[in-house]
Amino acid sequence: MQIALDAMGGDHAPGPIVAGAVQAVQADPEIRVVLVGDRAQIETCLAAAGAPSDRLDVFHCTQVVTMEETPVEALRKKPDNSISRCWQLLAERKVDAIVSAGNTGAMVAGGLRLRRFLKNVRRPGIAAVMPTLRGPCVLIDVGANVSPKAQHLFQYGVMGEIFVKHVLKREKPTIGLMNVGSEEAKGNDLAKETHALFNSSTLREQFVGNIEGRDIHRGAADVVVTDGFVGNVVLKVCEGVFEFLMKMTFKEVLGALNTERGQGQQALQNLVDRYDYSEHGGAPLLGIDGICIICHGSSGAKAIKNALAVAANYARVKLNERIVQELEATTPVGVEEDS
Amino acid sequence: MQIALDAMGGDHAPGPIVAGAVQAVQADPEIRVVLVGDRAQIETCLAAAGAPSDRLDVFHCTQVVTMEETPVEALRKKPDNSISRCWQLLAERKVDAIVSAGNTGAMVAGGLRLRRFLKNVRRPGIAAVMPTLRGPCVLIDVGANVSPKAQHLFQYGVMGEIFVKHVLKREKPTIGLMNVGSEEAKGNDLAKETHALFNSSTLREQFVGNIEGRDIHRGAADVVVTDGFVGNVVLKVCEGVFEFLMKMTFKEVLGALNTERGQGQQALQNLVDRYDYSEHGGAPLLGIDGICIICHGSSGAKAIKNALAVAANYARVKLNERIVQELEATTPVGVEEDS
Repeated sequence: MQIALDAMGGDHAPGPIVAGAVQAVQADPEIRVVLVGDRAQIETCLAAAGAPSDRLDVFHCTQVVTMEETPVEALRKKPDNSISRCWQLLAERKVDAIVSAGNTGAMVAGGLRLRRFLKNVRRPGIAAVMPTLRGPCVLIDVGANVSPKAQHLFQYGVMGEIFVKHVLKREKPTIGLMNVGSEEAKGNDLAKETHALFNSSTLREQFVGNIEGRDIHRGAADVVVTDGFVGNVVLKVCEGVFEFLMKMTFKEVLGALNTERGQGQQALQNLVDRYDYSEHGGAPLLGIDGICIICHGSSGAKAIKNALAVAANYARVKLNERIVQELEATTPVGVEEDS
Repeated sequence: MQIALDAMGGDHAPGPIVAGAVQAVQADPEIRVVLVGDRAQIETCLAAAGAPSDRLDVFHCTQVVTMEETPVEALRKKPDNSISRCWQLLAERKVDAIVSAGNTGAMVAGGLRLRRFLKNVRRPGIAAVMPTLRGPCVLIDVGANVSPKAQHLFQYGVMGEIFVKHVLKREKPTIGLMNVGSEEAKGNDLAKETHALFNSSTLREQFVGNIEGRDIHRGAADVVVTDGFVGNVVLKVCEGVFEFLMKMTFKEVLGALNTERGQGQQALQNLVDRYDYSEHGGAPLLGIDGICIICHGSSGAKAIKNALAVAANYARVKLNERIVQELEATTPVGVEEDS
C-alpha cells in the first residue's frame, strides 16, 4: 500500500504531518508513505521524529499552495506544488492513495483537472463522517461541487451508500436528502429534482426522503445527500456549535464544581477528543479513480496517522470497485447518460 | 398594542399558547392579545389558566392548518384557518402584530399571498437570533425564500442590520455573507453576485465579506446573510448539534460525578435553558408591513410569552419605519428597480 502524503499541507506543516506518517508506518506494516514536499524540511522533521523507516520516502518539490490562495490560480502559477505532485503520483499509478491537510479547494481542483473519475461518475464529492445519536453517518458533498445538478446528488447518494456499507459496515444503509422540511414538495428546484431521481431509482427502498437539519445528529439517515455549498456550511456550522458549546460547558459546568472538578474535566475532555472535528481521519473525495483523503487544515500528527490508516482501509475494502458496480446497477429511469 | 395570536398553531396548541398569552398580558400592561381559533377550546384554556383579562379577546375561526400540510394548498382548502385569519386582522389594521407557532410555511405563504410588503422590499425574510461567543447575532433568511436572487439577499442584509441596531442595540453592526470560504471568488453564483452587491453599496464599510459556517458562533458578524434553504438547514443543524452534545454531556460528564452531580446538573440545565432553540421568543418575518413573529412548533407558554413581548418591542422601536428609510438610502449601484 503506497500513499503519497502532502507534507507541506496544513496549518502546522510539515512537523506534525511528517510525525503522523512516522506513526502510521509504525502502526501498520503494510503502509508505505511517500512524503511530498521540500526534502530538506522533511528530512529535518524525520530526524526529529527519530524513527527512520524504509517505508518512508521523500518526493521532492519546491512549491506550496497556501491556505489563502485561490485554488485554480495557485495550481497554474505553481506547477511544482506538493498537491499537484501528489495527484501526479496517483495518475501515474505510483501510489494507491493521496492524503493532504492543505488547501481543500486546490486538492479538489487538482483532481478535477486530471478528470480521473471512476467509470460513470459525473462529479466527485467529499464525504464527511458525522457523529449522531445512533452512530456515525455520512454527509456528502461537503464542498467539492457547490453548483451540482440533481444527477450529481443522486450519484453522491450511491457512493455514500457504498461507503457506509463497506467502511462503516452497516447493512442496507438509508439515504436522506437534506431539505427544509419533510414533505416531498419542499425545497428549491434542485432538491425537488433529486427527490424524484431517488424515488425512480433502484435505491428507492433505502431512500427515506427529505430530512431536516436537526435530523442529522438524531441519526435519521445513514447517508445525508446535499450540494457542496450546503454541506460545507453544515460541516463547519457543526464545528462552530461544538466549539461554542464545549467552551460554555467548560466554563459554566466545570465552574460549578469544586472537589469533583478534576473528574468532570476528564469526562468532558474525553467527549471533546472524541468529537473534535480537527482530529478526524479526513474525508474522502469519492468518485476519483484512486483514493484521495482531505484532512482538516489544523490536523495534528494523530489526525494524519488516522487519515493514512483510513486510506489503507479504503483500498482494502475495494471501495472504488464497488462504487463502479453499484453505479452501473442504479442509474435511475430517464436520466440521460451525457449530462 | 394589539397582537393577534394563532391559538391553534404549535405542537401542543391551544393549551400552552393560551397560557403564554395570559402571562404576556400580566407582564406588560400595554399588550392586548386577540386569540385566534376555536372559541370553545380557547375559553376552556382561559378558564384553566384562571386569569381573565379585559386585554384578552377571542376571534373565532373553525379551521386549523396542521404542521404536516402543504402550506399553499392548506391555505386554499381551509379559508377559515387561524393563520389566514391572523393575516386578515393584520391587513385590516385591526392588530399591529401577529404571532404563530403553527406551520411556518403556511405563515410565510399567508404573508406572500397578501403581498403586504414594506416599501421597496422585494421579498420578506425570516431573521433568527443565534447565540455566539460575542453575544447574539442575526441569521437571515432562515426559510421564507429558498430560491432568492442576489438583490433579495442584499435586502436581508439591510433589514438584519436595522434589526441588530435597534433590537439588539449594537452600533454599526457588521454584515457577513454565508459562504464556503473567505476569499471573494468563493461559492456559487448567488454568493458571488451578492458579495458584489454589498461591495458596491453604502453598507460596504460594515460588510466583512464571506464568512464560513464555523464563524457564526465565533461571532464573526452581527448579521449573517444567506438564502432561506441554507439558513433553514443551518438553524436546524444548530438545534440538532445542541441536542446531541447536551445529551452526551448529561450522560458522560454528569455520569462521572458523585457528590457534586446536583450542582453540575443545575449548571448544565441553566445552559440548556438559555440556549434551548424551542424556548426562544420567535423569529420575525422582516419586510412585512406589520409585525409577524414565527415561533418554534414546540413552543411552550414561556416561548409564547417571550414572542408576544418581542412583538411589542419591535413596534416600540419602530423597526419597520427604520427599514423603509434604510432601504431608500442603501440601494446599491446598478440594481434595477423592478427585479
